[in-house]
Amino acid sequence: MIKELAGLKTVCLNETKDAVVILDQTLLPEKEIYVSLFTEQDIWDAIFKLKVRGAPAIGIAAAYGIYICSSKIKTSSFEQFYNEFCRIKVFLSGARPTAVNLVAALDRMERRILLNKEKSVPQIKQELLKEALAIREEDATACRQIGENGLALLRPGMGVLTHCNAGHLAVSEYGTALAPVYLGQERGFGFKVFADETRPLLQGARLTTYELQRAGVDVTLICDNMVSSVMQKGWVQAVLVGCDRIAANGDVANKIGTSGVAVLARYYGIPFYVLGPTSTIDMQCPDGKSIVIEERHPEEVTDMWYNRRMAPEKVKVYNPAFDVTPRELITAIITEKGVW
Amino acid sequence: MIKELAGLKTVCLNETKDAVVILDQTLLPEKEIYVSLFTEQDIWDAIFKLKVRGAPAIGIAAAYGIYICSSKIKTSSFEQFYNEFCRIKVFLSGARPTAVNLVAALDRMERRILLNKEKSVPQIKQELLKEALAIREEDATACRQIGENGLALLRPGMGVLTHCNAGHLAVSEYGTALAPVYLGQERGFGFKVFADETRPLLQGARLTTYELQRAGVDVTLICDNMVSSVMQKGWVQAVLVGCDRIAANGDVANKIGTSGVAVLARYYGIPFYVLGPTSTIDMQCPDGKSIVIEERHPEEVTDMWYNRRMAPEKVKVYNPAFDVTPRELITAIITEKGVW
Repeated sequence: MIKELAGLKTVCLNETKDAVVILDQTLLPEKEIYVSLFTEQDIWDAIFKLKVRGAPAIGIAAAYGIYICSSKIKTSSFEQFYNEFCRIKVFLSGARPTAVNLVAALDRMERRILLNKEKSVPQIKQELLKEALAIREEDATACRQIGENGLALLRPGMGVLTHCNAGHLAVSEYGTALAPVYLGQERGFGFKVFADETRPLLQGARLTTYELQRAGVDVTLICDNMVSSVMQKGWVQAVLVGCDRIAANGDVANKIGTSGVAVLARYYGIPFYVLGPTSTIDMQCPDGKSIVIEERHPEEVTDMWYNRRMAPEKVKVYNPAFDVTPRELITAIITEKGVW
Repeated sequence: MIKELAGLKTVCLNETKDAVVILDQTLLPEKEIYVSLFTEQDIWDAIFKLKVRGAPAIGIAAAYGIYICSSKIKTSSFEQFYNEFCRIKVFLSGARPTAVNLVAALDRMERRILLNKEKSVPQIKQELLKEALAIREEDATACRQIGENGLALLRPGMGVLTHCNAGHLAVSEYGTALAPVYLGQERGFGFKVFADETRPLLQGARLTTYELQRAGVDVTLICDNMVSSVMQKGWVQAVLVGCDRIAANGDVANKIGTSGVAVLARYYGIPFYVLGPTSTIDMQCPDGKSIVIEERHPEEVTDMWYNRRMAPEKVKVYNPAFDVTPRELITAIITEKGVW
């Protein structure tokens, strides 16, 4: 655990284990506010509205969330319990389509039920709790190992560019893309990080700079369209990004803008690394073309914070939340199991 | 003149010719407010704060502006008049360093004085007025011809992507990068335009979509980091951008982000055209490395509209206003004199 970030808990259960508690990331960096989610609607909203975001954190929130909802199902019949579980699972799965971790975590929870179907409903509820906690623990362990594997490819003093937020706030502890940065920080590597602000929702400006600054890392905020400029100046020696879904052929879906950064890195001869747990690999998905890309509301682009209009009324907007970076632009995919 | 835009006057003189009247572009698209500039400080502020912006429009505002200020110099001595003119010229030149048109227009005004130094001060003031009007007229003529030269390279129905605003609001009439779009619109070419929002000051979101929408052009707003995505989808067949300074070797300084769009266009095999009047070519400047790039306040990036913070306090920010696109990424530079 990074000591400076110990106070920031992205997703956890409350003491009475009847609510998921999340740090509301839409209010950062201005306010650090924790929200308790008690119902399936609370959990769906929090994921859909990006109060909790980042592929691994969404998975953890969904696992905790479906445990909370299942624990409140009032029946002793397995059939009734399982049917109700499945209904909630379908509902939560629809909150965001692109990150594989959401569905993957819910599938794991369902398998835990099916493996224990001979047990009583109260016992099955305990199994679900254990599974959710295991997902959380495995994620933290994976992140640390991703950090080790990534750090082996970097040298002290490097300039590192990252897009969106794949750090502590996106995951449980070290993050994915930022794990090598945090490990490097603990070991005196002195990286200089450039954080793309990441329009439209500014996860880079609001979250990445926030957590890196808090951890004492040297970070400089730039607009997304300044990437070419800082690369041209020779300030960047590696790009580190997270991922929302990795197709079987190695194509990667990640936050909108990632593929553009990859093209720029290729042009300027800079290694482009994608970091994520193996749980982000979707072997069912043959390639990037098969990944569903979520399109979000135009108002995210036209109305900053939904309170002041910065484009004409009725203007057409294209607002994809993700894009696909083809495998040929990726220097390596770094997982907890090694470098691919 | 595009009839739908006839009501929008970017820069002009008032009737009594003692003020420059500009449309305050920092308030668009919410409010269409004209501001009268009477003093050198007014003019400097308007240029520095981007109330008037776009390389050609800055040149015209500076020419009108120095005429206004010179016309108010109370002396009949040529020496005193010329010294005072030079002092104002140095002051206005400092408002923005990158666009060549600012200094070029002021230099033209000075040459007009020196060519007429035997005349009386009141006569010289009339010469300055004529020179400023000539700069304006030549610019309008050049833009129309840039449009013709650019349109010859495009086909009906093409998807066209543009960055920042190099349209009617940046110049006097047809604009530079948007001139072929407007001419095409008059001739039924039916272009589909993608406008990058252009952070940090959102000239694309606020100005380009505004003027294109008003002129009835099909325009879609995207964030800067969505360029790769729309190109990957095959929606863009040409990129049209303006320029703030063209070096003698063909390197081009333009709004921050332009070089990134050029790299992406190269990767996706899309022609990348730079459009500007020959007055934007700076033969004194051998190459892009010699162009001074203006760096602006961090608050442009961290505080949207300077009223709500969207990044942590004290975060480091790099905020260059321009970048340099190397000649090898440019398919052609289109001026009023032809295609280079």
